Amino acid sequence: MDLAIVDTLALTMADDRLGVLEDATIGIDDGELVYVGPSNGFDGEPERTIDGNGRLTMPGLVNVHTHLGLTLCRGGAQDVPEIEWMNRALGPLVEHTTAEDYVVGARLGGLDALRSGVTTVGEYAADVEQLVDRSLEPLGLRVVATETINAVEESAADLGPDEAYPLDEEAGKAALERNEELFETYADHERVSCLYGPQALDMVPPSILETIRERAETHDRGIHMHVAQGDRERRQIEARYGSGATTVGVLEELGIVSDRLLAAHLHGATADERERLAAAGVRMAANPSSIAAIDGVTPPLCAYREYGGIGGIGTDQAPGTGGHDLLRELRTASLLSKTDRGDPTAFPAWTALRVGTIEGARALGIDDLVGSLEVGKRADVVCYDLEHPAVAPTVSRPLHTAVPNLVYGASASLTDTVIVDGEVVLEDGSVTTVDEASVLEEANDRATALFDRAANDWEAADSELVARIEDGWL
Amino acid sequence: MDLAIVDTLALTMADDRLGVLEDATIGIDDGELVYVGPSNGFDGEPERTIDGNGRLTMPGLVNVHTHLGLTLCRGGAQDVPEIEWMNRALGPLVEHTTAEDYVVGARLGGLDALRSGVTTVGEYAADVEQLVDRSLEPLGLRVVATETINAVEESAADLGPDEAYPLDEEAGKAALERNEELFETYADHERVSCLYGPQALDMVPPSILETIRERAETHDRGIHMHVAQGDRERRQIEARYGSGATTVGVLEELGIVSDRLLAAHLHGATADERERLAAAGVRMAANPSSIAAIDGVTPPLCAYREYGGIGGIGTDQAPGTGGHDLLRELRTASLLSKTDRGDPTAFPAWTALRVGTIEGARALGIDDLVGSLEVGKRADVVCYDLEHPAVAPTVSRPLHTAVPNLVYGASASLTDTVIVDGEVVLEDGSVTTVDEASVLEEANDRATALFDRAANDWEAADSELVARIEDGWL
Repeated sequence: MDLAIVDTLALTMADDRLGVLEDATIGIDDGELVYVGPSNGFDGEPERTIDGNGRLTMPGLVNVHTHLGLTLCRGGAQDVPEIEWMNRALGPLVEHTTAEDYVVGARLGGLDALRSGVTTVGEYAADVEQLVDRSLEPLGLRVVATETINAVEESAADLGPDEAYPLDEEAGKAALERNEELFETYADHERVSCLYGPQALDMVPPSILETIRERAETHDRGIHMHVAQGDRERRQIEARYGSGATTVGVLEELGIVSDRLLAAHLHGATADERERLAAAGVRMAANPSSIAAIDGVTPPLCAYREYGGIGGIGTDQAPGTGGHDLLRELRTASLLSKTDRGDPTAFPAWTALRVGTIEGARALGIDDLVGSLEVGKRADVVCYDLEHPAVAPTVSRPLHTAVPNLVYGASASLTDTVIVDGEVVLEDGSVTTVDEASVLEEANDRATALFDRAANDWEAADSELVARIEDGWL
Repeated sequence: MDLAIVDTLALTMADDRLGVLEDATIGIDDGELVYVGPSNGFDGEPERTIDGNGRLTMPGLVNVHTHLGLTLCRGGAQDVPEIEWMNRALGPLVEHTTAEDYVVGARLGGLDALRSGVTTVGEYAADVEQLVDRSLEPLGLRVVATETINAVEESAADLGPDEAYPLDEEAGKAALERNEELFETYADHERVSCLYGPQALDMVPPSILETIRERAETHDRGIHMHVAQGDRERRQIEARYGSGATTVGVLEELGIVSDRLLAAHLHGATADERERLAAAGVRMAANPSSIAAIDGVTPPLCAYREYGGIGGIGTDQAPGTGGHDLLRELRTASLLSKTDRGDPTAFPAWTALRVGTIEGARALGIDDLVGSLEVGKRADVVCYDLEHPAVAPTVSRPLHTAVPNLVYGASASLTDTVIVDGEVVLEDGSVTTVDEASVLEEANDRATALFDRAANDWEAADSELVARIEDGWL
């Protein structure tokens, strides 16, 4: 046996509950969980032992929806009206972001995620293979990679929101072929799997969606798509598909609505549409901080779960959400849900922990591999320090206060050990797979150059932030 | 000169803006700020120099409303209906909390606050002098201490919400005398000042409020009071003062509504009442995480500021809010405000930083002393690490992204140095004034004993959490 975490408080997430085990031992061999049970029933002889005393050990967090590549743009797009966010704040930065900037951004964003106890990221990007091979895989993360398929022509930037963006079918097909190759590239990779990534219904022609549907069914693959993102999309769908058409309605007609679909956001759908999606087995990716920051909206995850739908949580992108700390995001999801519904019992701590682990794994279609601590699954594990001012004290009677304290006291500085596929990638709070200082230095240098290159265009786009700089606020 | 922080990015909060200074130096002598300006204009000869390169230096955070003494009860009261929180979840724990438990809890809660960059806490407690002398003052914090004046008889616990709680005027007077003595005790203390603390209108007889008003005017002192906390209070006020009576209306009649009053919460007041309070100069203490967790409500701080009111932010109490990390609380305040108003521009990062510093100091009436980096003020200063995966990269052109990145990427692990009244109380991320491990160990031991003692009563109170334990969730 390679490794055992001994004498720990464990949350296994098995059997539709948290699976609380006191004085537990977790045994790992060859990347697999080989023992999960009481320490006094453990007779393995591990080569390495981690003392789990004073720590909470649970499945690694699953961050289901990320654009880690955008992390260098952090700080350039928030506190602006929704209608400005994409084209007047983030857009001018993205136009100047190079392929190498995305790689460096993904490395920093992945590091930020990992430090909060994330073991899987659902990364969604153009040329995602570069980010996986050069940033996320070397960090030691598990990745569900989605290639962005977007056929919108560049000239669309000059159009108003009610004029249907012209679509370049050939560009869309080329992206689909890149997406297709991913499945081959990572067919035998232990830590990387793939999804199809039609970006959104207003950005991809129906012919390509039909091809994706056919191939997904033929090869038993999943689809990851932004669905019903809000007002801009709603207007585009009406312009393209006719008055009264909605994203969900068109996707149903195209046969995309099925249990193969992971749908990000959904706040622009009606309650009735969301209920239909849940009934069809569509999984939801909710991104609370991001959608609060971009749209001023709470993702309808509570309602989606009440319809019987499966949902996971993501941090989306750093400009807007702040970063990729999923532990903090669970806290945010809970507090936003409570105020959204006027109900302090909404999205309680125990739900947050399941959604952050096993349900996130279900959302990404990898719950056969990870998401719970069960013998036979791959060893993706996090240990959080309970002897820390952010969560202490914790008691075990009459309830395990570690559960609420971890969620509501959330702090990435609690993360003591992270194991992915049996490899220790974070130890005593420090990442072992990359040199953090180098990652930070390169990110700072590249971001300085990126913001410098983009400064004129960003200022000319004239978002409200530009006026705030002139006012002396930024 | 005792100390200088050199070559730092500084936010001074002077002149109604953030007061961004690049390559700044902050000079401190005898607990006072003696230089705030460009490094190249600094010719002091400090005994000690702190390298501020790669750090953001700003006034220490002001946590305006805390019950740090309750920190040992963390994890025992959240995810329950509002009507259960006080009497069925927290109450049975408080009944078993000893004077020593409050002291140990305050030490841990103060440590949690300090680690996030808090330099001032507005602590509100019964026998607050014990917490100040034994926990908060030795930690090195600045304290605005409020003695709880509560005259509710114990028998009130058996009454329904519509029966006016019987009040024991003598008990109220005794508490007022303890409160009165505080002002004498700390008259010459550099870091401790005091407020009167009538707990809430339903818990104190009007005669005592009249005495407090007279004394506050005579001695030029402030009053810190929970005002319009929600439905339970509203029903009590009608039972006591007649149908249609409201907290704000009665306080106006009693002459308590003035610029001497710091009012916590206010979510149970009407918009019109809040506008009147703001016009009268009443300061608001908003507690976003706490009120989200207890009531499922977003504190109306944005509206209060639009009326011209002054407000600060507090973490209230750990069971419910998660802890006392005010940096995280600024992020929470922003995201809750954005979703509450459906407006992504609500409570932007720059507002959060001012409310967390200078406006918090105004709320507590100590802005002549602290809250901004200006020569002549006391040296309460925090340095946050910007070379950290939670906030990096930061750039200075075309905007200072450190401002949004600090707020939205909030993590207590960014806190590098905290200085209170010129003394370094946290250095390289570690508190210098107490032994953290000992604080944690004592808190864990005492909490285990406290929850054990309280377990039967807590279970008998039968909040929804008890059923969740039986269901296997906790």
